[in-house]
This record gives sequence, structure tokens and C-alpha cells, in this order.
Amino acid sequence: MRLSSRLPHGFTPNALTASLAALKAGGREILDLTVSNPTRCGFAYPEAEIRTALSAPTVLSYDPDPQGSRTAREAIARHHGHGLRAEDLLLTASTSEAYGLLFKLLADPGDDILVPSPSYPLFDWLARLEGLSARSVPSYFHERWHLDPGTLEAAVTPRTRAVVVVNPNNPTGHFLSKTEWSDLTAFCTERKLALLVDEVFSDYALEPPADRLDTALQDADPPCPVFVLSGLSKVAALPQLKLGWIAVRGPGAAEHMEGLAFLADQYLSVSAPVQAAAPRLLELAPAIRDQIRQRLRANLAALDAALSAHPHLSRLPVEGGWSVLLRRPAVDGDDACALRLLEHASVLAHPGSFFDLPGDGHLVLSLLGPESTFREGLARGLSLL
Amino acid sequence: MRLSSRLPHGFTPNALTASLAALKAGGREILDLTVSNPTRCGFAYPEAEIRTALSAPTVLSYDPDPQGSRTAREAIARHHGHGLRAEDLLLTASTSEAYGLLFKLLADPGDDILVPSPSYPLFDWLARLEGLSARSVPSYFHERWHLDPGTLEAAVTPRTRAVVVVNPNNPTGHFLSKTEWSDLTAFCTERKLALLVDEVFSDYALEPPADRLDTALQDADPPCPVFVLSGLSKVAALPQLKLGWIAVRGPGAAEHMEGLAFLADQYLSVSAPVQAAAPRLLELAPAIRDQIRQRLRANLAALDAALSAHPHLSRLPVEGGWSVLLRRPAVDGDDACALRLLEHASVLAHPGSFFDLPGDGHLVLSLLGPESTFREGLARGLSLL
Ligand SMILES: Cc1ncc(COP(=O)(O)O)c(C=O)c1O
Ligand SMILES: Cc1ncc(COP(=O)(O)O)c(C=O)c1O
Repeated sequence: MRLSSRLPHGFTPNALTASLAALKAGGREILDLTVSNPTRCGFAYPEAEIRTALSAPTVLSYDPDPQGSRTAREAIARHHGHGLRAEDLLLTASTSEAYGLLFKLLADPGDDILVPSPSYPLFDWLARLEGLSARSVPSYFHERWHLDPGTLEAAVTPRTRAVVVVNPNNPTGHFLSKTEWSDLTAFCTERKLALLVDEVFSDYALEPPADRLDTALQDADPPCPVFVLSGLSKVAALPQLKLGWIAVRGPGAAEHMEGLAFLADQYLSVSAPVQAAAPRLLELAPAIRDQIRQRLRANLAALDAALSAHPHLSRLPVEGGWSVLLRRPAVDGDDACALRLLEHASVLAHPGSFFDLPGDGHLVLSLLGPESTFREGLARGLSLL
Repeated sequence: MRLSSRLPHGFTPNALTASLAALKAGGREILDLTVSNPTRCGFAYPEAEIRTALSAPTVLSYDPDPQGSRTAREAIARHHGHGLRAEDLLLTASTSEAYGLLFKLLADPGDDILVPSPSYPLFDWLARLEGLSARSVPSYFHERWHLDPGTLEAAVTPRTRAVVVVNPNNPTGHFLSKTEWSDLTAFCTERKLALLVDEVFSDYALEPPADRLDTALQDADPPCPVFVLSGLSKVAALPQLKLGWIAVRGPGAAEHMEGLAFLADQYLSVSAPVQAAAPRLLELAPAIRDQIRQRLRANLAALDAALSAHPHLSRLPVEGGWSVLLRRPAVDGDDACALRLLEHASVLAHPGSFFDLPGDGHLVLSLLGPESTFREGLARGLSLL
């Protein structure tokens, strides 16, 4: 029996993953500078309140609404502001499920979507698993990151149905500028494309510039269909609870929500406990986000202090998000460099290639981990670069 | 902007749904004989224990395993018995998600799968949303339901990748016989097809015959790849908690599990609370299932008593599951009959067509609802048939 060609051709781990597994199996302690799981970073969660919220009496009664519980949607609408209403929202079990539903709504097998590069290496697979292909739209760095309209034009095909952007992007931290937003919506309008805006990190703005688009929801009446994605993973740093959502705006919004509700109704994947808990979790979230922002700033300051002793190394600005790009002389490839760091300094960092950064000369560090680990990792690792 | 052709062409509700909405909006009390939501049927759930289980301390820490929490899988393996191991199981947020992952694993857009008819009207959409088409395999009733090997042969195409069966089927209650099982696995082996067995109702056996295949897991070493689907929806009557699973058996099982784990890893949809709670919920489940079985038997007895006064009506045997097929003289179409029942007797029943029953002469009643509602519905409705 042959399996679907949607799957990868093999499951051989890459050299870095294989080496990590071998070192761990041998008992080596690794300083992980790629950590993205906030529940493992020493933040003080209000445990009792979260556990109480998850065991509300309403979890005993099933009231399936394809868009998700209205009370939860009202709380999410309040969290976002910008005139968002409960009716504009549909709940999902994760941002990944949100992508799956949107790709099913917007495109037929064989169609394509434009996805940002560098970015989180998720879109290729999510598209392919829905029978679509993801066409990469490289952005470039010159003092800051830029989305290039010419590149968008060059990537679009007659079968393109949607453009995905991540605001701020992971791992570059790039927020769209207001100009980029109007160029992008004009492009999508002209080409009759939908615009998907992944804003899971939008609460984590860090450094200038000030002309950033804090959120696509600032545009109450975009000229093209806009779908904004977010979820509790980053908004409340609770990825294990499995609540994501889609906000629907722009021309055709009612019809798009009807289609999404039909699709969600076939799966109904969002659990009752997290739907019941969502309003309370969103009340508790600002205190968790404050801790995270403090951590991100502290680790960034530690990095800047450490870099001052290594003039051949530098970092890119971090407009937002949970990670930073470290620039190094490309004396060897990034993959080889990450392997060297791991094997000789017991420090795990991502090579730029993991996020589809072109060429060599970048490592990606997470700013989320405990400060002591981060500093120790820099102390051990930077001299090797 | 055009939407995907995977979607239905419109969302106009059918006449029965439209009439139901209008009557409810006008304040009419409807006796619902289609209820399938167990949380609304007056069963005594151990509320405190369930709520405690959902708020375990472990919900605060995220430990993503693409197959799902090992402790939960161990408990599910014990629930099933038949030598099933935690390694053979993969958790999903619902049976629907399980179908989605399996269709992605097994088939490319444009491929097809064979689905039982009559059955739960879910497969057509779930297949179509993955770019597949569902080819219907009608079973027939003669004293009991039969899966016809000739019909399977006739339905298969060069692009067929899998056969779905539901054991026991919904709404017919038909359990596969042991002979049907060996015919079916031989057929799939010869044709190089995977066999998906939906056993969400397998804990609810009711009437003879005794040669039924209680579960496909009795076959420890099937000759073709077998995927058994189930979940807490029916096993613990807790559909709102969103936990389903797939058990993988047969040739290629290790490779199939590797592929499924890859797929599940792209979504990671199962929430931590239900994974933490699953072992305890499975301990609590037998007491809930006992109440349900009692209810099913009581309502079936009430139906038989009521039918004795209506010699032109009869019911089919109920080998298992939560519903019963009522046979009536087809003086009008089933859809018109259901509408008549609703409008003149305020009784909601499903026409056979809802489950793809061929021809006219069948209504489908749920046996799950409170006995008083069920009896009152029969008292009001049967004389109209
Ligand atoms: C840009 C982006 N979108 C989505 C996700 C995943 O979110 P979820 O956990 O809701 O699927 C991530 C995870 O890091 C991400 O970086
Ligand atoms: C045969 C069958 N499979 C699956 C399901 C849905 O199960 P879940 O709630 O786990 O998606 C149903 C629901 O009634 C069903 O009848």
C-alpha cells in the first residue's frame, strides 16, 4: 500500500536533531537557546486560578456552536478591541487548525498560496497537507526587514488564492509598516486574493520603529478579505490549552464566516474546558505577558552586553516577538556552526536555514528562556563563532 | 474572490431544519427524538470527579507528544484490551480529526475512499474537504443488515485507497459479522486498501445476533492495514471534552504510525486538561455507559409496547448503537412525513434520507433521550404515520 504524497519522503532527522538526541541520551546537559515552550521557562503562572477556570460547572454540558462559545468570543473581542465583535470570531483548537480551515475555505487542491520567507517553517506543510503549494515570498533586510512588492508580483500565479503574513514575523520580529500594509491590501484587492495575518506575537512589541502596524485589526474596513489569526499559545502563554481563533474582516466577511462555520462544524475540535475558561484566562494573561516582556528585554540586554566583547558579531533589531537573529562571519555554513556549538559548547541554537533564511551568517536565538541559561549559553557559545 | 469548491454550493437549510427553527422561534415546545448529545439527556454524571480530573496540576506544563500523552494512551489501551499497547495509539481532538489525519495519510487529492451507506452523513464531507471523493457502498437489509462483497467490488476504482466501516453502524446498529470481517480484510488485502473501522458505538451492543465482531481489535494480526477509531464522545459520553483516538494495526503499522505522528505534530490539537483527565474519565465511564444502556433498553421496550397498537408499523432489530429504524408504509416520502410529524405533532424525527437510506419508509429515532420525552413523542407521533 502506498501512502499519500502529501507526506515527507522520509523521517530521517537532520544532523543537528540527531546529534542532540545522541548527546542527551549520553547524559550531556544542553543549554537550550531555542526554547519556545513558555510553560518550561520559569514564569510564575497563577496556577490555582487557571485550574479553577478549567473546571467550571459548564464543562459538564455540551452546547456546540460552530463558531465557538459566545462568552469566549466576547472576551476575545474585548482583548483585541478595535471594534472587533464576537460575531467576527471563530474559535479553533490551534493556529494550525485555523490555517487548515482557511486553506480549505479559500483554495482547491492544486491552488497555491504565498508565504513569507524567512518565517516559521510551518506554512509549507500546512499548505501541502491541504493539497496546496506554498510559494515563498522572500523579504529582505536593509536596516530593517522589508516586504518587497516586486517579489510578491513575481510570486503570484493564476492559481494563487491567498497571501500569508506574520505580524510581527517569527523569527525576524518584523512588524509590517503602515505603508507595507496598504501596499499589501492593495495588491490583494487587485489580484482578488485573501490576506491571512498571523498575529500570535502582536502583544510582544519590543524595539522601534514607531510606524509599525500594531495589528491588522486597526484597519476596520480593509479593501480585501482579511483573516487575523491568534490564540492563547502566545497571548496567554498557554499553548497546552489549545485555543486559537480567526477574526474575519473585509468584503465578503459574512459569507466567509458562514463557510468557516460550516467547516468548523465538521470537526468541532475546541474543548469545553478551555472555552469555559477563556474569559478568565484572558484576564490573567496581561500579568504573564508582562513577565515575558521583561524576560525578553533582560535577555536582549544580556546579549548586547555579551556582544560588546565580540566586535565581529552583531544582532538584528528586534521589533517584536520572542527571538533574535545573531549575525556572524560566515566562515562556515550555519548548519555546521550550530552543530559545532552543540557538540563543543553544549549550546543549542537554530541555524538560519531552519527558518529559511537565505545564505549563511545567521543563528536564531530564543529570548524566552531563563536569564541564567541564556547568559551561560552566550558565555559558552559566542567565543566559538 | 471565489471560494473553494470543497464547500457546499449554498447554506440554505432543508425544509425540516427551517421549519424547526421557525417553530422554536415561535415558542413551540418540540419533543426531540433525534437527540444525540448525551450531556442533555438527564444522565447522572459524577460532576465533581470529572471537574477535578480536568484541573490536574499537570495541565500547567506543556509536554507535547505527537501521539498524545503516554499515560492517557496507556489508559485507553487498558480500556480496549485485546493486546492493544500505548504505542499503537495516537490521540486526536475528535473522531472527525482522526478521519482527517487518516485521509491525509492514505490518499492524494483526486483519490477516493469507499464509505458505508446508510450511515452517519459525515464521511462525504470529511473526504471532500481533504480533496477526496467518497464512493458509497450500500449495504442491504434482509432479516439483518449485510455488507455486500459484490457492491464493494463494484464501487472500487484504481484510485481507491481505503474502505470505511462503522461497527456497529449508525443509525442501523449493524455489527459486522465475523464472516463479513474476514471477507472485508481479504478484499482490502487483495486490493491493497487500508481499512478504517469506526467503533465509537462498540460499547453499546443491544440485541442479537451473537456472531458479531464486537471489535476489530479482536483481530490482533489483520492481513491489511487496520485503523480503529474511537473516542470519549461515546465511550464516556463526554463529547465536549474533545478526545478521540486511532489504534493502528496490520502490515506497515510502524510506518503508518510514524506518518500519523508527523501529521498530528503539525496541528497538536488535543488539549492538556483532557489528556491529563483521560485515565480517570475512563475509570468513571462504565457507570455512565450502564445508565445509557439502561436508557436504550427502556426506550426500546417503550417503542415495542407502543408499536403493538400500530400493526402497520414496525422497527428493525437494534444490534447496537443509540438509534432505531422505524418502518412505516411509504404513503408519502420520508422527508414529507418528518415535516408532518414536526408541524402537526411537534415531534422531531429524522427521515431515512438524512442517513442516506434508500427509498422511503423509514424514520430514524434516537433511543438516548429521557424516557418520558421518548414515550410522549411516540404517543403523539405514531398515530400520524
Ligand atoms: C507564526 C506562528 N504562528 C503560529 C504558531 C503556532 O501557534 P499554535 O500553538 O496556536 O498552533 C507559531 C508557533 O510558534 C508561530 O510562530
Ligand atoms: C459513526 C460516528 N463516528 C463519529 C462520530 C463523531 O465523533 P466525535 O465527536 O469524536 O467527532 C459520530 C457522531 O455521532 C458517529 O456517529
